[in-house]
Amino acid sequence: MTEVDRHVFVIFGGTGDLARRKLIPSLHRLMVENGLAGRCVIVGVSPSDFDDDAYRAWTRTALIDAGVTEGLEVWRDEDVYFERIGRHTHSYEELAKRIETIEADHDLPGNRVFYLALPPAVFPAAISGIGEAGLSAGEGWTRLVVEKPFGTNLHTARMLNIVVHDHFDESEVYRIDHYLGKETVQNLLALRFANPMFESTWNRDRVESVEITVAEDLGIGTRAGYYESAGALRDMVQNHLTQVLTLVAMEPPISFDAEQIRNEKVKVISAIAAIDRDNVVFGQYEAGTIDGAAVPGYREEDGVSETSTTPTFVGLELEVDTWRWRGVPFYLRTGKRLPKRLTQIVVRYQLPPLCIFHGHRDACSVSPDVLVIALQPDESFALHFNVKVPGEGYELESQALQYDHGDAYGRLPDAYQTLILDVIEGDQTLFVRSDEVEASWELYDPLLDMDLKPHPYPAGTWGPGVHVHGIDLGEGPWMSR
Amino acid sequence: MTEVDRHVFVIFGGTGDLARRKLIPSLHRLMVENGLAGRCVIVGVSPSDFDDDAYRAWTRTALIDAGVTEGLEVWRDEDVYFERIGRHTHSYEELAKRIETIEADHDLPGNRVFYLALPPAVFPAAISGIGEAGLSAGEGWTRLVVEKPFGTNLHTARMLNIVVHDHFDESEVYRIDHYLGKETVQNLLALRFANPMFESTWNRDRVESVEITVAEDLGIGTRAGYYESAGALRDMVQNHLTQVLTLVAMEPPISFDAEQIRNEKVKVISAIAAIDRDNVVFGQYEAGTIDGAAVPGYREEDGVSETSTTPTFVGLELEVDTWRWRGVPFYLRTGKRLPKRLTQIVVRYQLPPLCIFHGHRDACSVSPDVLVIALQPDESFALHFNVKVPGEGYELESQALQYDHGDAYGRLPDAYQTLILDVIEGDQTLFVRSDEVEASWELYDPLLDMDLKPHPYPAGTWGPGVHVHGIDLGEGPWMSR
Repeated sequence: MTEVDRHVFVIFGGTGDLARRKLIPSLHRLMVENGLAGRCVIVGVSPSDFDDDAYRAWTRTALIDAGVTEGLEVWRDEDVYFERIGRHTHSYEELAKRIETIEADHDLPGNRVFYLALPPAVFPAAISGIGEAGLSAGEGWTRLVVEKPFGTNLHTARMLNIVVHDHFDESEVYRIDHYLGKETVQNLLALRFANPMFESTWNRDRVESVEITVAEDLGIGTRAGYYESAGALRDMVQNHLTQVLTLVAMEPPISFDAEQIRNEKVKVISAIAAIDRDNVVFGQYEAGTIDGAAVPGYREEDGVSETSTTPTFVGLELEVDTWRWRGVPFYLRTGKRLPKRLTQIVVRYQLPPLCIFHGHRDACSVSPDVLVIALQPDESFALHFNVKVPGEGYELESQALQYDHGDAYGRLPDAYQTLILDVIEGDQTLFVRSDEVEASWELYDPLLDMDLKPHPYPAGTWGPGVHVHGIDLGEGPWMSR
Repeated sequence: MTEVDRHVFVIFGGTGDLARRKLIPSLHRLMVENGLAGRCVIVGVSPSDFDDDAYRAWTRTALIDAGVTEGLEVWRDEDVYFERIGRHTHSYEELAKRIETIEADHDLPGNRVFYLALPPAVFPAAISGIGEAGLSAGEGWTRLVVEKPFGTNLHTARMLNIVVHDHFDESEVYRIDHYLGKETVQNLLALRFANPMFESTWNRDRVESVEITVAEDLGIGTRAGYYESAGALRDMVQNHLTQVLTLVAMEPPISFDAEQIRNEKVKVISAIAAIDRDNVVFGQYEAGTIDGAAVPGYREEDGVSETSTTPTFVGLELEVDTWRWRGVPFYLRTGKRLPKRLTQIVVRYQLPPLCIFHGHRDACSVSPDVLVIALQPDESFALHFNVKVPGEGYELESQALQYDHGDAYGRLPDAYQTLILDVIEGDQTLFVRSDEVEASWELYDPLLDMDLKPHPYPAGTWGPGVHVHGIDLGEGPWMSR
């Protein structure tokens, strides 16, 4: 392990929910496990009425709330600061001075992370503020971390990229998609490119279909304000599902280098054929029951319009029009208030060309081989294959070769822990490049304009029972059947 | 389940070890589990001084010795008989009369199984005796079951086939190789021909090597008389290992029919190139330690010559010269007094063409994908593949997708239970055809004439540390490393 560079880690939105639940705990774990202790000075920034001491106390509470019981001594008060910044109170110039003072006091070389844990509406102002105050021109390296959503459509994403590139070089920009930080998502690349057994069958000659599902049992919680204007397509499909899709479908990169990998990912998105209106289903949950408890419908949630047409479910079929995948349907599915929390990739292989076991060769009762890559709640691989049922005759039955990543390695790093370390180490591999974001919006923008009405589905079901070509999305993902 | 035909089951060697340990318990299980009760009349035949009652008691003791505690009521005295037959006491004509009487008493349709659980030296006399007494020409079907070894070389195997065919049609002959009755061996066909995921990589383009190991921790026990003249090549390689090899290497049959499958198996054996002297290692165990207990060397065993050159270990490399396998080495290995009892097939896949993960593309630290099919002591599949070790960087490590056939289905049928039922149902799929036996001897006969001296190896090691081309056999099979 090489030593990480000493730096200032500035969290815009430093007193917010993301900072409290993810960033502060992840920074703490990085101090305990990854050599960050004593090399990272944290500066929380927000409009809240805090001072350094109040913020130090607040971050300690955040750690305790996150269940941290050990290693609290590495979280040193002298490495945690707060700077209030609002519309009229302090200017970015004052923040710049404060950071310079802190760097001088700590004898830091001027490396700076700016983490925008902010509502997306204020991204442009924050980025411009940072840039115009000269904060992005320290003595050392500068890195800008931008949370999702990156734009709300192609136009706003392009505008945001313009603002970003006014002040930062693309090599300094880290667009977070926390799905990419999950161990199993990274493992997908290992599965494909370290195991010829899988890679050699990973194509239209062998694969029947690919299914990517992100199911949530929760509703929108307190996020009605954001969700009403976003909906499931922006919230999940354009970013998380599409990112996972690119890793499933990409060609082998010539090396494991951030640019090479991201080049291949962009190629996948660019190769996806325009999505036909008939291949998309929007849904919206109605009142129903989850785990025996009655839950309200989407339109009954606090802050949601009674006539809202915001989709809380999206199911769609698309085609990755490459030499490798032409003709293989990819199904993406996500929804809120589905029966359970579950993220998985299902690669379904073609049936044998001939069924030799049952006398009648055409009436084949063989199940397809199916590789199920589970990302949530467990991280695991299962390869479902046919075995002979013991005893007389030659009855076949599907069983699974199983591997559980958590069983093998114990606690896996949190996605944020992985991604923040990558930021500090300057590895952009798991971050989304500007052209990727734009290509993705280019793909989904037309769907936003189609004025698709969501089909209602009761909470606690697998979504509206509407067929999208080959698949009844209402049946739920493969593993739940 | 169709009803089995009512029949007489004649066991030559009816008071022997095989009858006691395997045949009687298997017939009992078939009565309990497979509808044999009341449809099978057993006639034990041997030179021992037994009568019907003594034999009935003997078979009950055999069941109890085999651990049978339930279902003993299906083992009815009136369905068990004994006929003494020796050189001068009774003739086969008398046996024939006795069987006719029994068939008449039980109103049986004349279906007859003749099971030769005899020392191989008396096979020809027994077969001729049965034939000349007209026993093979009952009113119903007739089936001859011949235990191993079938001949001691090509010449004797041919002579034995001539005797067999003098009195039986090949469609009536069931040459037992009990390895073929194991569930996992049959599962090999399901694995290959019901799962395109595996079959599509099952060839020289993807497979680096195949390794078949039958390791025994036991010595020769009380079988010195047989073993001294047989040795490991005749005892294990010519039959069991070669049979398993044929199922691994065969082309897909056009249907799951005994003749089709056996045609494909013969093709494999016929395609094996003559085995070079340099590709064979014979070994013989010396005194050593197994599981902490001192055990004698082979030459010190009771009944073994002090200058014996009988091999107790054989390791060899051969090439299946087919379009599918040309260039892929197959390693066969078997030995007595190895560290543990273990039968497994190891299919080792080729490494990735390119290692993209570690910067330096040529120094690839990826392990090969390896499919391990365990037949003994557990019946299981494990597909070893590379995963990313959680945490920083991109370290790869081999883990396994696991499936245990016993865990999934509980107690698996014993090989003899499976095979005897097949005999009674007239299914020859899992039995060795005359041309298969001869092709196999044709392959190994030259090795018998090579006068290869066995290399000594200490009991409790993986055999002599002698390299056969690519593989150090002394390292032991893949799973034990």
